[in-house]
Amino acid sequence: MSWTLAELAAATGTELVGDGTLRIERIASLASASEGSISFLADRKLRKYLSETRASAVVLSADLAGDCPVSALVSSNPHVSFARVAALLYPVPEVSPGIHASAVVDPGAQIDPSASVGPLCVVEADVRVGPGVVIGPACVIGAGTSIGAGSRLVARVTICHGSVLGERVIVHPGAVIGSDGFGLANDAGRWVKVPQVGRAVIGDDVEIGANTTIDRGAIEDTVIEAGVKIDNLVQVGHNARIGEDTAMAACVGVAGSARIGRRCMIGGGVGIGGHLEIADNVTLMGASVAPKSINEPGVYSSTLSAQPQMTWNRNLARLSRLDELARRLGELERQVHGSGRSDD
Amino acid sequence: MSWTLAELAAATGTELVGDGTLRIERIASLASASEGSISFLADRKLRKYLSETRASAVVLSADLAGDCPVSALVSSNPHVSFARVAALLYPVPEVSPGIHASAVVDPGAQIDPSASVGPLCVVEADVRVGPGVVIGPACVIGAGTSIGAGSRLVARVTICHGSVLGERVIVHPGAVIGSDGFGLANDAGRWVKVPQVGRAVIGDDVEIGANTTIDRGAIEDTVIEAGVKIDNLVQVGHNARIGEDTAMAACVGVAGSARIGRRCMIGGGVGIGGHLEIADNVTLMGASVAPKSINEPGVYSSTLSAQPQMTWNRNLARLSRLDELARRLGELERQVHGSGRSDD
Amino acid sequence: MSWTLAELAAATGTELVGDGTLRIERIASLASASEGSISFLADRKLRKYLSETRASAVVLSADLAGDCPVSALVSSNPHVSFARVAALLYPVPEVSPGIHASAVVDPGAQIDPSASVGPLCVVEADVRVGPGVVIGPACVIGAGTSIGAGSRLVARVTICHGSVLGERVIVHPGAVIGSDGFGLANDAGRWVKVPQVGRAVIGDDVEIGANTTIDRGAIEDTVIEAGVKIDNLVQVGHNARIGEDTAMAACVGVAGSARIGRRCMIGGGVGIGGHLEIADNVTLMGASVAPKSINEPGVYSSTLSAQPQMTWNRNLARLSRLDELARRLGELERQVHGSGRSDD
Repeated sequence: MSWTLAELAAATGTELVGDGTLRIERIASLASASEGSISFLADRKLRKYLSETRASAVVLSADLAGDCPVSALVSSNPHVSFARVAALLYPVPEVSPGIHASAVVDPGAQIDPSASVGPLCVVEADVRVGPGVVIGPACVIGAGTSIGAGSRLVARVTICHGSVLGERVIVHPGAVIGSDGFGLANDAGRWVKVPQVGRAVIGDDVEIGANTTIDRGAIEDTVIEAGVKIDNLVQVGHNARIGEDTAMAACVGVAGSARIGRRCMIGGGVGIGGHLEIADNVTLMGASVAPKSINEPGVYSSTLSAQPQMTWNRNLARLSRLDELARRLGELERQVHGSGRSDD
Repeated sequence: MSWTLAELAAATGTELVGDGTLRIERIASLASASEGSISFLADRKLRKYLSETRASAVVLSADLAGDCPVSALVSSNPHVSFARVAALLYPVPEVSPGIHASAVVDPGAQIDPSASVGPLCVVEADVRVGPGVVIGPACVIGAGTSIGAGSRLVARVTICHGSVLGERVIVHPGAVIGSDGFGLANDAGRWVKVPQVGRAVIGDDVEIGANTTIDRGAIEDTVIEAGVKIDNLVQVGHNARIGEDTAMAACVGVAGSARIGRRCMIGGGVGIGGHLEIADNVTLMGASVAPKSINEPGVYSSTLSAQPQMTWNRNLARLSRLDELARRLGELERQVHGSGRSDD
Repeated sequence: MSWTLAELAAATGTELVGDGTLRIERIASLASASEGSISFLADRKLRKYLSETRASAVVLSADLAGDCPVSALVSSNPHVSFARVAALLYPVPEVSPGIHASAVVDPGAQIDPSASVGPLCVVEADVRVGPGVVIGPACVIGAGTSIGAGSRLVARVTICHGSVLGERVIVHPGAVIGSDGFGLANDAGRWVKVPQVGRAVIGDDVEIGANTTIDRGAIEDTVIEAGVKIDNLVQVGHNARIGEDTAMAACVGVAGSARIGRRCMIGGGVGIGGHLEIADNVTLMGASVAPKSINEPGVYSSTLSAQPQMTWNRNLARLSRLDELARRLGELERQVHGSGRSDD
């Protein structure tokens, strides 16, 4: 798919600077671009690559446009504008509507004629699939599930019975939505399964990464609100609720009944405890742990940083006796000052 | 499915207090319940919701029965009794026995006539499937695997060749049982694969979560003992052994040849090192790390707790030089006391 | 499959000590071996098991051969030699070439006649499958993917469109290669998807574990170099590059655009931050976090170690105020010494 630079400017609402007749065929990074490519500069630290780029055009902000040696699309948000340019250059491939002959579809499923069900899918009873939905190869859609218009299950997605997906939801391969939560009652040392009868409810415009798992609710629902973006290998426990437009990087674990606010940014590998609340607009740095509620917006961290092993081992040995060390300090302060702190 | 409260009392061995003719149709939380619902109260902290509940009945302990404004089922273990009530109200759907026409089943597989093999499953040679087993859609069962009576593979489960599953095992979508362990020998910088010839052996009444992976043994077997419950996205390395009735929350990693005791509770995101032993009745708090054996029962933790980023960064900078700080303290003690500690 | 000990010696280039006519049928550990077994001793700590072994033969190093009560294969690298012996005793089962009748293969796919495509696979347009490739049951191979000679997808692997796999690559069940990276641009609080147009490129002799996810590149490629071994449930973000012969244990998360060197050993559960570099020959201990680049080879760690909960909680409370504690120490030093440190 090829566009002229003027067409891209018009379609993305950016300001054209330079030659609008240039043909743009692909995206590239500033450093590796060649003729026919469009690149972008959103991070000022990468400015050094701008002067030598061989891109035909660059998407950038007005204050950097003067440094640009080639044509430009000027935007107040170059990253977003670049995303829109890329979406034009690389449209999601058209999929023919209809149900592949090899799919096993229950006669009671209601599949919109404009939707597509790929090869070797299983669609159980009472499933409703909306207009324009694309269900890629080898997906399993459990009974009673509803999938909203324009959603796309890339391939090999499993949706368990009774789940609700909104519109324009994207689910990547291997993800499991609506599996049983970890509900157990202890009977004198033996575990008794607690039936999980809530649903998994996924809002509009949610994206769910590969091999991510989102449990159904125990009694009420697990809810992923509109606009949430979840990366790969994330676990969301039963009854959790994730607020609108929150983004969650890979390998995050959200324990059951946690409530995460809106517009949060959860770094990779973060662990979030059960039955707690994270306020709106909280950022948790990668590999942090939140065992308790966080009530104020802001940036939080408990990220460690690897040291040479011998150094770390010495520090860890001290950490394992840190309370004692603090008490020794308090004792010394009392001796030197003639009076001490109440907490040591 | 609807029961009278008296029927539920009789079927679960609980004491009926109030109107046994009430019809109970569903479960609900105390706060969201309405007529026809049964709720439960196991956590005294939630007592405040009891007085205002609109549930038709509540499962609770004798000491709280007096505060209950509606009918009750009194139990010495309300959580377990509630689980049993829920299992009656929400029975696992009946599945018709037989092999779906779209499944690919080796003629040498022995499938009990009362078992069910769902659409688009692959069942390889010499597989034995016991009575009442339900193999949901799109599962792959490797050659020589044995699955005990009453087990249920929900959907899209992969069992690799030669695995052994006991009775009443539940496996959730995307789980992989019996894949090769990470066995490598280093030949002058290059890795040589060590064939993995042990099995994955899963005991009776085990439950395995979505997208969890359990490796086969390298030489001997990886063993998950009876009654173990494993949540989603857990990794169990080759040759590991997990003792009876241990529960393991999501995102746990168990390295190879670890031996975990019975009735342990392993919190979400815990990492357990290889070739170590965890005693019976050990609880590891979420996001802890156990790089060494734990020989005594009890509750253990190394869970961090996120702080505002600037606070944490200052603390982390100190932690990275904690040994030096401790030495300075020792030096100061020697100066003030005129004598010091041998370890500083 | 049975070999004489002399045949195994010849085939693996090891030195036969003892009875070359012994028939060897299987591998076993020193402690559990019986007649017909071959075992190995690579870790001197396990020497105590040697004297009592019932193995027919043991693979070991020359300096331990004198202690061996049975026949031996002497090797300068017993672990590697044992791996080769095991590969002879347990050959990967032969698979008949050809495409299973139940597979859905696009007519435009080019599948070498010596390759095998298992039941219920989906192979899309323009896929190229090389000689001797084995695609196990229920795999999905996206359009335009190329799979090199001798590679093996065990079962239920998903390869997204346009991926490139080298020769002799092994991919275990549930792995997803080439899914979209987590590319998002923020438009006034809403996330806009950035099309992911790079590829996932997997080198020769790479092994990828069960339910591992490797994202495609955003613009350029995600690259796993030759000889890399990746365990289960690992996430590799878009644009990451992992150097030759690096081994990565389970549950590792590698954030986007990280560059990891050659011959690194990354322990289980490690988190590696985005846009950083790890030098060649770096070992990261299990459960460590690398939020910053590591420029020198060596062993690094930030592994914590669980303590009894009350002890840990006291230590953690001190850690959360460690900067203040260090300042108090500095203040005390100034008072005792009459002069202080500039950094406290």
